Amino acid sequence: MPPTANITRDSQFSYRPIGILASPYTRRIDAPHQSTVVQGTETGEVAVATLELAGWLTDKVIQDLSGFDRVWLIFAFHLSEGWASSVKPPRGGPKRGVFATRSPHRPNSIGLSSVELIKIEGRTLHLRGVDLIDGTPVLDIKPYVPYADAFPDAKAGWIDELDTQLGRHSAPGPRRPR
Amino acid sequence: MPPTANITRDSQFSYRPIGILASPYTRRIDAPHQSTVVQGTETGEVAVATLELAGWLTDKVIQDLSGFDRVWLIFAFHLSEGWASSVKPPRGGPKRGVFATRSPHRPNSIGLSSVELIKIEGRTLHLRGVDLIDGTPVLDIKPYVPYADAFPDAKAGWIDELDTQLGRHSAPGPRRPR
Repeated sequence: MPPTANITRDSQFSYRPIGILASPYTRRIDAPHQSTVVQGTETGEVAVATLELAGWLTDKVIQDLSGFDRVWLIFAFHLSEGWASSVKPPRGGPKRGVFATRSPHRPNSIGLSSVELIKIEGRTLHLRGVDLIDGTPVLDIKPYVPYADAFPDAKAGWIDELDTQLGRHSAPGPRRPR
Repeated sequence: MPPTANITRDSQFSYRPIGILASPYTRRIDAPHQSTVVQGTETGEVAVATLELAGWLTDKVIQDLSGFDRVWLIFAFHLSEGWASSVKPPRGGPKRGVFATRSPHRPNSIGLSSVELIKIEGRTLHLRGVDLIDGTPVLDIKPYVPYADAFPDAKAGWIDELDTQLGRHSAPGPRRPR
């Protein structure tokens, strides 16, 4: 049987949260737009978020995870209402194709953030550098593996251009959690 | 209304493929286990895969994407049947908690790969360093942005330990596409 036998372009894939994030950001407007931006707030504060495993998972799933400095969170932008083919990035400039941005307003409103894993206590992960709002449904946790994930010299198209124009890291600035 | 009002731990999130990947790997056993491993095959061959946008999307969604060296693919491990709390990594060693691995056999069988974007022709992305099998349903494309995504010095727990024991990059070796 060919591997694609049961998959059509109209197939749907459904996922159940593996945990709900608890974070200091309670409203979309408060959350910074990329997780690493949070690390150097004006006040020196660092937002810490926690993620407790959902009841349908055993503790075993997070075994061996504590040795990793960082993890990927794959999550649902659960407050995103609809999407657009092109979006105006908060960092400025004209509209961009939505797949050339990290906007929540995507065809499938799935988010991706690399966050620091501070510690694991029981079934709870303590995370730093989290840009997600409180209540975000997390769909997957993956270990951050530099050889597969880290490409510091990769060119970043319109973002590089804007950074050159405006000074590096033109990402929208961090806000203090309220 | 609090942001979590409609989300419970039992909510399901459904996504429709934004495209189906065409790749030289037709069976699971042929596919290497992390995308970057593919780049240095013994024969010097480099696997090229293509991703054509699904019909429900307009060309606009990929505007401005061609300036990026790399993109993230978020995809469904559509051939994964069930999952386990701990899994035996192909690179060796004992079983590990599934969230400490990149195994397809996860609670939500979502995959993540950073791949090289070679070029875009019309509605088709040409990609290099792809470890996914032919017919993989892709759920999202995101630009690779080094300041948010690249952490070359992040420690990688049991993977680092195994690499130290066995020599760097103990990841299962590449196979030639058939």
